[in-house]
Amino acid sequence: MTPADITINDVARAAGVSKGLVSLALNGKPGVALDTRERILAAARELGFTPNPSARGLTTRRAYALGLILRRAARTIEVDPFFAAFIAGVETVLSERGQVLVLTVVPDHEAEARAYERLAADKRVDGFLLTDLLADDHRIALVQRFGSQAVSLGEPVGGSPFPVITRDYDAGIDELVAHLLGLGHRRIAHVSGDERMLHGLRRRERFEQAMRAAGLNPVIVPTDFSPEQGAEATKTLLDSAEPPTAIVYGNDPMAIAGMGVAHERGLRLPHDLSITGLDGSQIGTYIYPTLTTLDNDPAGWGIAAATALLRLVEHGEPADVALPPARLVVRASTAPPSRH
Amino acid sequence: MTPADITINDVARAAGVSKGLVSLALNGKPGVALDTRERILAAARELGFTPNPSARGLTTRRAYALGLILRRAARTIEVDPFFAAFIAGVETVLSERGQVLVLTVVPDHEAEARAYERLAADKRVDGFLLTDLLADDHRIALVQRFGSQAVSLGEPVGGSPFPVITRDYDAGIDELVAHLLGLGHRRIAHVSGDERMLHGLRRRERFEQAMRAAGLNPVIVPTDFSPEQGAEATKTLLDSAEPPTAIVYGNDPMAIAGMGVAHERGLRLPHDLSITGLDGSQIGTYIYPTLTTLDNDPAGWGIAAATALLRLVEHGEPADVALPPARLVVRASTAPPSRH
Repeated sequence: MTPADITINDVARAAGVSKGLVSLALNGKPGVALDTRERILAAARELGFTPNPSARGLTTRRAYALGLILRRAARTIEVDPFFAAFIAGVETVLSERGQVLVLTVVPDHEAEARAYERLAADKRVDGFLLTDLLADDHRIALVQRFGSQAVSLGEPVGGSPFPVITRDYDAGIDELVAHLLGLGHRRIAHVSGDERMLHGLRRRERFEQAMRAAGLNPVIVPTDFSPEQGAEATKTLLDSAEPPTAIVYGNDPMAIAGMGVAHERGLRLPHDLSITGLDGSQIGTYIYPTLTTLDNDPAGWGIAAATALLRLVEHGEPADVALPPARLVVRASTAPPSRH
Repeated sequence: MTPADITINDVARAAGVSKGLVSLALNGKPGVALDTRERILAAARELGFTPNPSARGLTTRRAYALGLILRRAARTIEVDPFFAAFIAGVETVLSERGQVLVLTVVPDHEAEARAYERLAADKRVDGFLLTDLLADDHRIALVQRFGSQAVSLGEPVGGSPFPVITRDYDAGIDELVAHLLGLGHRRIAHVSGDERMLHGLRRRERFEQAMRAAGLNPVIVPTDFSPEQGAEATKTLLDSAEPPTAIVYGNDPMAIAGMGVAHERGLRLPHDLSITGLDGSQIGTYIYPTLTTLDNDPAGWGIAAATALLRLVEHGEPADVALPPARLVVRASTAPPSRH
């Protein structure tokens, strides 16, 4: 064992005391009996133990855990196509290193702040994964206030002192709109996601830009990203005076729900209606017709985010990561329109 | 505040020392300076603080966390229809109480044992959720060895001293087979899941029983529960000399993948092929045709498991829970066969 391998556990064992007492003694906290304190310091010296200088609070140990605090209704996890795959990516990285993820769901702003404080102050996690960035996000400030670390998925408004993971969607959305225009579509609608979330908002804006650049009027129906609202939006669009010949959905589950509505109305897919997702998930490769979408690789986001955060925690190296741009994946759900 | 509301934090504050020192003093551990120990004990008496008698180890505080250790390849989380909904249910319960879930994925038996030891011995969780029970499961013994608590989804072979959550599937599977027989199907195949898992094995056995009771020969194709293998199994069945007129899939994603294969081959669903899931998930209500399945409510499993485990941890009350039996949900993917 080199000195770097020596842990507080080894010191505790050598001194014949508990870890907690070692921590108190090494941090110069009062209340430790004098002879015990001396025995602990002697054991630490003998073993060559150096406590991590950035450690705070009761103990010097690392948590070997990352935190993910989601502010939403817990039930929404069930239909979120990003969640499970993102977690899979994070766990791929943590599993290799024997580390864990601390996951908590909070209902509101106040509970969110308390959760950051509790996990950071008790050193139950070494840093936080920040997902679903909002336009008025306050989490960067929370993490700083509680002296922890973080990585964010996407660039926060106002920037971040922590690593930022990004993936360019703009080129993919341009490509997707160009693909539909190339097939002959002119009436193209976008069933967008929750526009309080930065990624939902940015994609909607890019879709509008691409349509306007082609001299067309973008039609937008915003939703909360759920398949229910995706189905409702589809009905609204198909009932309109000039129904679209193609619909771009903000995620794949909404696109699948939209396909269900179209099938039920007797539309032949893709000829009577072209449908695309926008946040590729695995299920899109199995349904019929297979779903044209932008490949997002949510597991890749999880791998990149966990890796960047651990580098920061372990080596103090903050490094942004630009993931490969989201690519257009053309499958069977898009075709030339049968009516104009 | 009643005495029951008094925490170790209150004692620490009153005595002007750290929680760790309070814990050491109250547990009669050596190394605490005499005057400090007396001040702590006086503060505890004054406040009427009673440490939880079941608390072990360094501190008397609870972790306010439950643990979920999954032994599998992390990437499989992505396509597991149970995972996200189960987590949603667990977090519904934990979120209300400000508690967290510690999630970790381990590659093998050895890493699994180490993970239980680490989380239990460091008191990083108050108990464990045991999912995906295997025929030769050793986790009950691990949890006991490390002095922690648990709840299991399903009845372990050899029983359990911890609460067991069950849901009867037998009646539902009988109903499902009766539904297909009633429609006129005789050649009914089952694409089963991973048979090392108890729930996969039990459902396959019940399907076989129900078929034999009707004087029919059950055809089984086992898989690993993934949509890829569900698609492959479908091809194998459709290519056989006497292809089935109905296929019962072990979960909904495999059924959706099977639908894709059937569509691609030009089969009209449900007339040319009836398809059912067996572990109802939300997506089945949106696809076309909507999927006949057994309603499993994975979020309900999560709610029941987290509630039972917290009752055990907080009040020492072990109570088994029998969830409502899985009901047959008939939707549009089953119909009388067009050929015999």
